[in-house]
Amino acid sequence: MKTLGASTTEGDRYTLPVIKDPNTGSIVAESLAIAEYLDKTYPEKPIIPRGADALIGLFEPAYCSVAYGNVVKLILTKTLEIMNDSNREYFIRTRLELLGETRWETVSGENAQQQWEEFRKGLDEIDKWYQKSGGKWIMGDTFSFADMVVACRTMWWNKIFDEEQLRELHSWNGGRWARVLADVNAECGTNL
Amino acid sequence: MKTLGASTTEGDRYTLPVIKDPNTGSIVAESLAIAEYLDKTYPEKPIIPRGADALIGLFEPAYCSVAYGNVVKLILTKTLEIMNDSNREYFIRTRLELLGETRWETVSGENAQQQWEEFRKGLDEIDKWYQKSGGKWIMGDTFSFADMVVACRTMWWNKIFDEEQLRELHSWNGGRWARVLADVNAECGTNL
Repeated sequence: MKTLGASTTEGDRYTLPVIKDPNTGSIVAESLAIAEYLDKTYPEKPIIPRGADALIGLFEPAYCSVAYGNVVKLILTKTLEIMNDSNREYFIRTRLELLGETRWETVSGENAQQQWEEFRKGLDEIDKWYQKSGGKWIMGDTFSFADMVVACRTMWWNKIFDEEQLRELHSWNGGRWARVLADVNAECGTNL
Repeated sequence: MKTLGASTTEGDRYTLPVIKDPNTGSIVAESLAIAEYLDKTYPEKPIIPRGADALIGLFEPAYCSVAYGNVVKLILTKTLEIMNDSNREYFIRTRLELLGETRWETVSGENAQQQWEEFRKGLDEIDKWYQKSGGKWIMGDTFSFADMVVACRTMWWNKIFDEEQLRELHSWNGGRWARVLADVNAECGTNL
């Protein structure tokens, strides 16, 4: 990423995603900055609706805090299970830094069950946002970056949780989480 | 409020604001719920723009956390100064409960100066939201509940800080905070 000329993001780290636009030569890192760049450069189909620039910026931090702020260790434990050894060592070290802790403890047993319950409660809160919007998207009838954030997290959950957990998760909130992912795929012509 | 038939809000408390609509008999407590009720009942001039119902709900918690989440004790110290004794006792007791602490300590001297600096940094962040919106309101050219939240906080600051602090505060961010309050007053035909 240094060779590419990408800039660092939060905490002075080089992070993905990053894009290089062959049409303009621009290099942009960090999801929301990429969305803003693409909307400005290719305005035909905006994903940050007019007037929502500031509010959309509040969405991802709010989603993360509500959906898994209290259960980040369950999510990290499950994420570690699908990594290879060298990634695992790096992942633990950097996540402990982010959490301001020094010793990693895998979440299992009763503790995991409790965090799973908390996870369900968090998603119940996000579900209320969709109910409030009165449409299939966070912005009602208007597709936006916010729905991409939600869909990308469902992709993450689909990678890390086991079959039984996924059956349960996809029964929550009337099947909301798989449906948002399917709707985003349909809207974007992707298959993620 | 019990006599009026108002419902409780967060933490099972009776809180202001609360309204009783003489046209419908409805009693509604809590700012955002009141805004939603008024938009639904009197839709001529909405303050929650179409499609923004869910995102507007994220605004006030985000504002509070960023603007004074780190400096809540400075704000409480200054607020206590303008209260009478019986209010002061109640205010300290209930705010300690909210903070999960048991002993109240007034913020003064160097500590107050540090928190004042943190307060400025918080407002710098909120100022970036306005810059991002590209208009005079949080939603660009569209007035919304979010700007009322910001204006009401400026009203609070105007009540609690002394003249020198207010001169300083109103020099920050190109005079943003008094201007938002003036703009909201102009928009609403109020003089607050």
